[in-house]
Amino acid sequence: MATDKKIEEGLEFVPKFDSNGLITTIAQDAETGEILMVAYMNSEALDMTIKSANAVYYSRSRQKLWRKGEESGHVQKVQQILVDCDQDCLVLKVRVDQGQCHVGYQSCFYRTLKNGSDKEMELIAEKVYDPKEAYKKK
Amino acid sequence: MATDKKIEEGLEFVPKFDSNGLITTIAQDAETGEILMVAYMNSEALDMTIKSANAVYYSRSRQKLWRKGEESGHVQKVQQILVDCDQDCLVLKVRVDQGQCHVGYQSCFYRTLKNGSDKEMELIAEKVYDPKEAYKKK
Repeated sequence: MATDKKIEEGLEFVPKFDSNGLITTIAQDAETGEILMVAYMNSEALDMTIKSANAVYYSRSRQKLWRKGEESGHVQKVQQILVDCDQDCLVLKVRVDQGQCHVGYQSCFYRTLKNGSDKEMELIAEKVYDPKEAYKKK
Repeated sequence: MATDKKIEEGLEFVPKFDSNGLITTIAQDAETGEILMVAYMNSEALDMTIKSANAVYYSRSRQKLWRKGEESGHVQKVQQILVDCDQDCLVLKVRVDQGQCHVGYQSCFYRTLKNGSDKEMELIAEKVYDPKEAYKKK
């Protein structure tokens, strides 16, 4: 098979990391289908995620591995890892029991653009935990 | 409010484009919750998407605006645009009636890593259209 076809139609996993060594990863609630967050993995984070079945990301701001939940306790148990056609993006189907966004919401996507507006958003969720409490634990 | 707090807690939409002028965008089926694809928008694509309520992306490989469905006819009707905490990622809740992946599947995520493997994938979907037919129309 030609390379493109092999990547798209083959069953060998050859994740395509970007020029920074990262791959975009979406965490989706396995039960509800809600998109919880988007983050990045480097090769090491991906290996750790596969081996431990707990989501591990690479934090671009802190420039280090980020075991999801290491501070907040809000871990993600990985049930399935989906791969897209060109293998440069992953979806983790995860089980979670607590808010996944550091702002206090279940999902990072707690706002929507108002219909037709390019400026104004509105809230579509309520906070499910108090980040101040969760992050002072450690 | 401090800048971070304003971005995270405010209701003013200030999308954060990356150093290439792009923002990561996930298309999610509004009805089923299935994640269909991940693509990128520049500022113009985002404006066009908001105004037309049809998804318009920026193709990194072709380096130009990409009106989703312009060749295949498989458009995305945008119902809602969700924004994440740091405003550097969007979710489009879309209505679609045909396969969204250029390989022929409904979603680009038609494969999953076999449980515990870091090499082998398996198919989790069947093709819903013939790309050869769809792309020769034009």
